Amino acid sequence: MKIPVNISNHHVHLTKEHYEILFGKEEFKIERYLTQPGMFASSSFVTIETEKSRIEHVRVLGPLRSYTQVEISKTDARKLGLNPPYRNSGDIKDSAPITIIGPNGTLHLEEGCILANRHIHITEEYAKELGLVPYQEVSIEIPGEKGGRMDHVVIRPTKEAFFEVHLDTDDGNGFGVGKDTLGELIIHE
Amino acid sequence: MKIPVNISNHHVHLTKEHYEILFGKEEFKIERYLTQPGMFASSSFVTIETEKSRIEHVRVLGPLRSYTQVEISKTDARKLGLNPPYRNSGDIKDSAPITIIGPNGTLHLEEGCILANRHIHITEEYAKELGLVPYQEVSIEIPGEKGGRMDHVVIRPTKEAFFEVHLDTDDGNGFGVGKDTLGELIIHE
Repeated sequence: MKIPVNISNHHVHLTKEHYEILFGKEEFKIERYLTQPGMFASSSFVTIETEKSRIEHVRVLGPLRSYTQVEISKTDARKLGLNPPYRNSGDIKDSAPITIIGPNGTLHLEEGCILANRHIHITEEYAKELGLVPYQEVSIEIPGEKGGRMDHVVIRPTKEAFFEVHLDTDDGNGFGVGKDTLGELIIHE
Repeated sequence: MKIPVNISNHHVHLTKEHYEILFGKEEFKIERYLTQPGMFASSSFVTIETEKSRIEHVRVLGPLRSYTQVEISKTDARKLGLNPPYRNSGDIKDSAPITIIGPNGTLHLEEGCILANRHIHITEEYAKELGLVPYQEVSIEIPGEKGGRMDHVVIRPTKEAFFEVHLDTDDGNGFGVGKDTLGELIIHE
């Protein structure tokens, strides 16, 4: 079964409270909708910083959430001198510390920075049809001159979803993923 | 069969003529030997540059060669606004243009910048024993939470060699390769 492959650049999710610390009264604007229903790229950017280094122009994704989370690649983590764990979105307990700088203020977080697990967005209905349960791990075959098979791809069903694999930029660059790359879903017995 | 996995950061190989343009009379010094027999990390560094961006502190590897070649990752290529081909070392015809800046001079190359193919160093003798021929492609299974199988790994036998896989930093970060990662060699029928 074919599945579209989508690469997520480093990005930030914010709570309403943290948005206001960073951006003050600046309106939280939709720049463009993403493939997942309701999700959008906002026109708000922050700098993320550690004692070692900083990465500027990191986009805030919307809508605002019940937790603040910074998702970076291992390449970014090396630059920043961090060693964040691989986690599913929302699972930020004991993840890496990070400082977020906005135009209106600065936020020092003791935890919240993760490397995102490879994961698949899928509707609850379609997951059931395929016999897949939440957090089950599958594999994806990627074609092409940098192709191969990636393991530990986590199934994340939601009521509404666009069926696709989400990878970070290291996986994207390592596997040579392009705009129209289709993977092959492999379900292990 | 297990095989050690080694990550190559971006680096530069230079001809004697190009070394002298970039470094003048500065001695070409060995900082430390690498795992491949005779190969070393020199204490000479350059900046590589395009119209879009630059990467500083790129190490020159030794010994000097009969061709000049800049090996970067796809992550680097995106930063530099380049689209170099995936190539075997030495195959630089029609590869990407790049500017190399040293303490003594600057070199504008029309070609020479590549993304290195995943490859395996192996002695000619051991390759023969395994029934492998030069440029044959094999796969490598990588264990761990970012594990999987990488395809199109090119066999590069030489008279002397330390048996190992060489990957770039994108593959290393994408597959979660650490200091002691061992891959599993898969030879296709």
